[in-house]
Amino acid sequence: MTQTHMAREVAEIPEAAARFLDRSRIAVVAAAAALRRQNPGLIATVARGSSDHAATYLKYAIELEAGIPVASVGPSIASIYRRPLRLAGAACIGISQSGRSPDIVEMMRSAGEGGALSIAITNHADSPMAQASAQCLPLQAGEERSVAATKTFVTSVLAGLSLLAEWREDEALRAAVAGLPAALEQAVKLDWAPLSARLSRAPSAFVLGRGPGFAVANEAALKFKETCGIHAESYSAAEVLHGPAAIVQAHFPVLALGIEDAALPQLCTTAERLAAQGADVFVTGADVPGATRLPSVPGLHPIVAPLVMIAAFYAFVEGLARRRGFDPDTPPHLRKVTETV
Amino acid sequence: MTQTHMAREVAEIPEAAARFLDRSRIAVVAAAAALRRQNPGLIATVARGSSDHAATYLKYAIELEAGIPVASVGPSIASIYRRPLRLAGAACIGISQSGRSPDIVEMMRSAGEGGALSIAITNHADSPMAQASAQCLPLQAGEERSVAATKTFVTSVLAGLSLLAEWREDEALRAAVAGLPAALEQAVKLDWAPLSARLSRAPSAFVLGRGPGFAVANEAALKFKETCGIHAESYSAAEVLHGPAAIVQAHFPVLALGIEDAALPQLCTTAERLAAQGADVFVTGADVPGATRLPSVPGLHPIVAPLVMIAAFYAFVEGLARRRGFDPDTPPHLRKVTETV
Repeated sequence: MTQTHMAREVAEIPEAAARFLDRSRIAVVAAAAALRRQNPGLIATVARGSSDHAATYLKYAIELEAGIPVASVGPSIASIYRRPLRLAGAACIGISQSGRSPDIVEMMRSAGEGGALSIAITNHADSPMAQASAQCLPLQAGEERSVAATKTFVTSVLAGLSLLAEWREDEALRAAVAGLPAALEQAVKLDWAPLSARLSRAPSAFVLGRGPGFAVANEAALKFKETCGIHAESYSAAEVLHGPAAIVQAHFPVLALGIEDAALPQLCTTAERLAAQGADVFVTGADVPGATRLPSVPGLHPIVAPLVMIAAFYAFVEGLARRRGFDPDTPPHLRKVTETV
Repeated sequence: MTQTHMAREVAEIPEAAARFLDRSRIAVVAAAAALRRQNPGLIATVARGSSDHAATYLKYAIELEAGIPVASVGPSIASIYRRPLRLAGAACIGISQSGRSPDIVEMMRSAGEGGALSIAITNHADSPMAQASAQCLPLQAGEERSVAATKTFVTSVLAGLSLLAEWREDEALRAAVAGLPAALEQAVKLDWAPLSARLSRAPSAFVLGRGPGFAVANEAALKFKETCGIHAESYSAAEVLHGPAAIVQAHFPVLALGIEDAALPQLCTTAERLAAQGADVFVTGADVPGATRLPSVPGLHPIVAPLVMIAAFYAFVEGLARRRGFDPDTPPHLRKVTETV
């Protein structure tokens, strides 16, 4: 079998990340300077699908590193309900691979008109969203042919983290971001064979994370659905015991995406409890009684570690999709660009 | 069989709503006056589980009626990561039935210390969360014995909508709120028998909504899991075509919670497309080709209509749980109060 587009694009992630850091450096510096001038008390994000998972990632990163609250704004507030939000003095970050979804373009235009600093993160620097925004960070990811976004998810988060590091002049985060191409190179070569064996026929699964790890749990659950037909659902490790655990019966598969941060002990406690309940639990980042540990890249800054994790997941899920008889490039019923109005 | 706690508590929803409007009126007026003095440019919400779905409902309601952005703040930002957010000048609304979850109490205290107006919505006016907050809206819901929250969800949203109507002096919303006990009385008597027949053995389902209807879709999906063991997942009707639709095969059950608002045409288009894809689609609020229409209470203000809808859903799902052989009062693996740290 010839290599799928998805496999090729996952393999390209490290070089796409390096290209972003190289070619978009001037755009990042300009946007960071604009953020310092704006000095926002609030950051709004506008996105859909995988890009909204990137926005969730940046919400945690910004709240943890800068202490500034981040609100996810439904594009429908502008496009359907036609209600302008009060965003004067705020910054509004829009994320869209194509930059063409009319509701997101409209929201960015409306935010800018209302006095927000609008920043577009897109793979198409000439797109309507880029044109409607004051600043643009071009992803430089090259063409993405698989319907399942991979390298554009990674470069979208990378763009946001680069901006955050530059804006806050955070040397530790700058160094972590500069090290991402090498860490991603390691990640896409990891082997999650035990999880692949367990999920070769599973109909359902849970994916758990916390903080920015929750954002990549959302992304992993979506990819399970899109590429493998698995009804996977993501939960914060703090939320799953409030109700969702009711459907965790014996051998229910659970993937707990642990990273080396302050939330790891609580995630491990939750994983252990679900394993004791009979679930088949797979975990990264720690040894948990009753669970199977999967390899991950160790020793990373906690704000970039989940991004490296998702690259390992992408490589794994592409193989799982083929094992389950799916073509990951062309999921049933989906198109690459969904133009929501 | 004797009546379940859940059935009794669902039946009590209309009188609990009336009691809140009667007994908490002074607290609502005081909190509204405090909001007018604060004049916040941002509202943060802090909650978990069903209460977080109430917070999502209030996010849409506040953004649509007041045009002020609302950020959901993970309690872990304060409790685990120990990172104070910049919330000076904002308002922070905490929602918790028990008012005892330590991470939420800590977040409310930290928000108040940082200059935010803190407002607790809780069934326990003497709880630590109430004591840590500048204002408190007591739910007056009486004891809730079922693990699955129903009357406290409805009264939490009611508390927030009452506050919004009073704060903005919005006569149309005030009238809609005053009419809720009567509308809820109609709702809990509706009959969703066709959906009950379809879901008597289903393992999975999707629940769709948009705007505040998305918040109640989240709540419905959680109740399907908690009380019926159905792996139900909620999606914005705008998001479901970005990936999740890949797992919608022939006869996959979909519940589309349509309300009479600006988003209804788009929700109907999505429902029709999923029906054409072979899904078994059930819809409220409109006739959709290929879908089964369920009854709802007509002619409501769009901001209160989803709240009335969830009461109808609660009555339905309690019966479905028993039909599937579950005791809705005691879901497997769950406790009423989860004290996340």
